[in-house]
Amino acid sequence: MRTYPLVTEAVQTTRRTELVDVTARVQQAVSATTATGGFAVLSVPHTTAALTINENADPDVRHDLMRKLDELLPQREPYYRHSEGNSDSHLKSSLLGSTLTVIIEQGRLVLGTWQAIYLCEFDGPRDRRLLIKVIGE
Amino acid sequence: MRTYPLVTEAVQTTRRTELVDVTARVQQAVSATTATGGFAVLSVPHTTAALTINENADPDVRHDLMRKLDELLPQREPYYRHSEGNSDSHLKSSLLGSTLTVIIEQGRLVLGTWQAIYLCEFDGPRDRRLLIKVIGE
Amino acid sequence: MRTYPLVTEAVQTTRRTELVDVTARVQQAVSATTATGGFAVLSVPHTTAALTINENADPDVRHDLMRKLDELLPQREPYYRHSEGNSDSHLKSSLLGSTLTVIIEQGRLVLGTWQAIYLCEFDGPRDRRLLIKVIGE
Repeated sequence: MRTYPLVTEAVQTTRRTELVDVTARVQQAVSATTATGGFAVLSVPHTTAALTINENADPDVRHDLMRKLDELLPQREPYYRHSEGNSDSHLKSSLLGSTLTVIIEQGRLVLGTWQAIYLCEFDGPRDRRLLIKVIGE
Repeated sequence: MRTYPLVTEAVQTTRRTELVDVTARVQQAVSATTATGGFAVLSVPHTTAALTINENADPDVRHDLMRKLDELLPQREPYYRHSEGNSDSHLKSSLLGSTLTVIIEQGRLVLGTWQAIYLCEFDGPRDRRLLIKVIGE
Repeated sequence: MRTYPLVTEAVQTTRRTELVDVTARVQQAVSATTATGGFAVLSVPHTTAALTINENADPDVRHDLMRKLDELLPQREPYYRHSEGNSDSHLKSSLLGSTLTVIIEQGRLVLGTWQAIYLCEFDGPRDRRLLIKVIGE
């Protein structure tokens, strides 16, 4: 049982809000280790981005998810004090969460048929980083 | 220090939205290992379900939690494109999260007096699965 | 590779809703171990508190985040049944989450430049506990 070196993946986003599928990149980082069973802990070192697991097939799900989040948390509120104009992005980051732990079994991420791992951009476009730390045996 | 084989628990839900207490089943999976200290990583391989930790006593808390979530995220929105009519379920899944890591100490899940682990159904009734992976020593 | 004894930190909150920066205390618990690489699993054993990672610099971000949460989830709703009057606190706890896993590298928590770890109080003032379990090598 051991930990593997931290892997950093660069993710370039292209819009203010966006869901970027990073599943293949995380699997690649796992496959580069000798771990057959264990976990991958994922983290984004940003306060206006997040990580989530959701539907990998119909892009309409991603549209609806981001559209509804924007409706609940619009960019402007009369009471917002933060001068950068991205308070909504910070709250979205905390609501979806900036870390994720995914089980590894037989060298593969354990995900359902319809699940993908997404880096959530809430204040792009920006250069983002995805950190991947594997522990296993 | 080692990982234990992945355990899969079947959970049958009976309504569209529902909180199913799975604490005893997770504790049972932990007790079946020789781990005295470590973690249990829990995951639901579904995109319209989630896992959360909340109040184990008064059922009114569960009612209020689900009722308010339904108010914030109603099933229909004029701008929803996803044809299955469960975009709200997908977003609820991402907001509550489909994975959880629980500390194990002296062979027991470390939870507060009032905490229980719930599988959250957001698009039932369905046959769900709860995955449990224990790491410990 | 090993687990380290569970550490419990006392956190005294002073208002109904509040974000308490606990980053230094978590780092201290990590530094007290011999772990150079691994993870810290954090947990609050409470159902009206949470843990989140967000902006460590401008206090206006924390204001805006809590203000918007209060607007989305006011303390009173005509349909709330829970007699303690803190149903909003329970839901906020589930939305932000009561556990967090943070990567450790070279003996340090791996956080972005602007990231801090916050204990979120949603029904204070209260005496809260923060549980820290380190695994590493």
